[in-house]
Amino acid sequence: MFSTRVNNLNPYIPGEQPKDREYIKLNANENPYPPSPNVINEISNFVNSNGMKLALYPDPDSTELLSEIAVHLNKTGGCMNNPQKLKSPITKDMVFCGNGSDEVLSFVFYAFFDKLIIPEHTYSFYPVYCDFYNINLEKIPLNKDFSINKELMLEKVKSASGMIFANPNAPTSLSLSNDEIRTMLQNYPKDKVFVVDEAYADFADESVLSLLDEFENLVVVRTFSKSMCSAGMRLGYLVASEKIISVIKTAKNSFNHFPVDAITQKAGIASCKDTEYYVDCTKKVVSVRKDFCNFLQENGWTFYDSKTNFILTKKDGISGKEVYEAIKKQGILVRHFSTKGIEDFVRISVGTKEQMEELKQIMKNL
Amino acid sequence: MFSTRVNNLNPYIPGEQPKDREYIKLNANENPYPPSPNVINEISNFVNSNGMKLALYPDPDSTELLSEIAVHLNKTGGCMNNPQKLKSPITKDMVFCGNGSDEVLSFVFYAFFDKLIIPEHTYSFYPVYCDFYNINLEKIPLNKDFSINKELMLEKVKSASGMIFANPNAPTSLSLSNDEIRTMLQNYPKDKVFVVDEAYADFADESVLSLLDEFENLVVVRTFSKSMCSAGMRLGYLVASEKIISVIKTAKNSFNHFPVDAITQKAGIASCKDTEYYVDCTKKVVSVRKDFCNFLQENGWTFYDSKTNFILTKKDGISGKEVYEAIKKQGILVRHFSTKGIEDFVRISVGTKEQMEELKQIMKNL
Repeated sequence: MFSTRVNNLNPYIPGEQPKDREYIKLNANENPYPPSPNVINEISNFVNSNGMKLALYPDPDSTELLSEIAVHLNKTGGCMNNPQKLKSPITKDMVFCGNGSDEVLSFVFYAFFDKLIIPEHTYSFYPVYCDFYNINLEKIPLNKDFSINKELMLEKVKSASGMIFANPNAPTSLSLSNDEIRTMLQNYPKDKVFVVDEAYADFADESVLSLLDEFENLVVVRTFSKSMCSAGMRLGYLVASEKIISVIKTAKNSFNHFPVDAITQKAGIASCKDTEYYVDCTKKVVSVRKDFCNFLQENGWTFYDSKTNFILTKKDGISGKEVYEAIKKQGILVRHFSTKGIEDFVRISVGTKEQMEELKQIMKNL
Repeated sequence: MFSTRVNNLNPYIPGEQPKDREYIKLNANENPYPPSPNVINEISNFVNSNGMKLALYPDPDSTELLSEIAVHLNKTGGCMNNPQKLKSPITKDMVFCGNGSDEVLSFVFYAFFDKLIIPEHTYSFYPVYCDFYNINLEKIPLNKDFSINKELMLEKVKSASGMIFANPNAPTSLSLSNDEIRTMLQNYPKDKVFVVDEAYADFADESVLSLLDEFENLVVVRTFSKSMCSAGMRLGYLVASEKIISVIKTAKNSFNHFPVDAITQKAGIASCKDTEYYVDCTKKVVSVRKDFCNFLQENGWTFYDSKTNFILTKKDGISGKEVYEAIKKQGILVRHFSTKGIEDFVRISVGTKEQMEELKQIMKNL
């Protein structure tokens, strides 16, 4: 009864959402703060005064939202932890949005890649899209210190159609600097796209958005799920040259009929108008991260220099799985990967100060 | 810079959304009534009291929504214009939902079809998905009276992996009866899916949901966009045997990471709890449709026996394009297709009584 495609499926195992008790969720890199009160009010006012807008199809191009994303990015340069002014501002024609950055990524994979280079450890959905679109995939091992092997990536991309990695990377939490990425781009084929997934860039020290005016083949994918406190809304976007955006739009209009819904468009617009609130949340997360790293240092845990809202850590004498299970038993979910090379670690999302204090009490005894 | 896929794109031309003036929109088969006030209140209460739920990823399985869709369907049998009790109730495990029925359809195409049979005139997105998934497509001409050629469809499906059509069909507005569909299914290969797109079934006289207990290969696709007054929310679903639902879920989890967002899940749940409101809207639409058909009859227009919230009509001596343009000039948008075979017609969505009175005044003079 099923198509030939179905016979080759490898179902992705989603992160656990156990329902046996209430857990503190430090396993999905969500933001521990809710969206701005202004956003909540705007959604509420919108539905109360625009019922008919819910009955009609939404703007398929999210026109106003694209403009407001550009305005928001120009206020921070793409890094809320360390706002910078961009030399060349982002315009609305350099932005494309979709139902979460996962959907945006699916357009990127469709439009650009026949053969793709990625680091061995990075966002686990990239290989899934390669399977789906029949993209030939080559994974490049990380360096021993978990940094991306820039030289080997550059060497291998010569025989591929492009590369993608998360920067800061997941689950390593490490970041390449803009200087390092500029050097990579200078040695990168001009006729191939260089895609940086900046899901976590607002928690880092800088964003590659400032490199867009130097490199026409740079594509930057971003999301409202992490620093904009809106994983529940499913909203992501892509920033690139107008030429690239226009091809992505053509690809979308050729096969995808799923615009961002009317309420999410409104919520995204309201979020972009309240940048200060999200800067404040970001700074709180970064401050709690610093404090938690101090705790790890003082208690004999190995960890990496996180530029994200999560920390990858391990301790000698106890396996990653045991750490995960011991913490879960006390009512907190963190993430353990059984993937070879990172199986000794757990990945801990940065929660509120209070949540992390609770976690410290548990980890002290491990 | 682009993948080989991009070179073969045929961009879909979306329906016009002119912004030069305010138009009465009778061109996209949207409902002229807003969602129920209870739904508006529920959305508003939800965002005001659950900000943190917006910061966290939504339930990937929309568990509560699936249950409520089943409850809603069991109240009406899938036809709000003429509610029926189902012999075998729909259970939550027989339902799957997505971001609009277009997304649900994309899973159906992915999971079931290598070669597909459709009627020549039906929902225009089916061929788009065939292109996207490389599905071999055969279009079967309609009968002279615009009805579906059941015999030829059944003959042709022998060498295909299945068929799909909208029932009632678009843009013809005509419906096959459940008796006709039962007869088709009795003569249909048991190991191939038979997909009925019931986007408009609530405006008809019956739904094929009542045939699900007789035929394990029947798949029914439905939407909140039309009879549930919620095109702006992007919510659709599929009803089928538990076995089929479980394969669709596996396909989704293998490559698609885009759950229905948290607010839309809540809005869908609230909508399903207010079936009576939508029954009332449906009956109003059907009553206005009847009145408008009388007008067409009295004024020399040819039209079909609509079982939907739109009417396909034409008049001797004036082309479809001319009708469309004359009506647009007066501030009302209707739909004209330049597709061969239906180019003489316009498709008019049923609006409110007041909107249709305005349209009558224009059409009287054509």
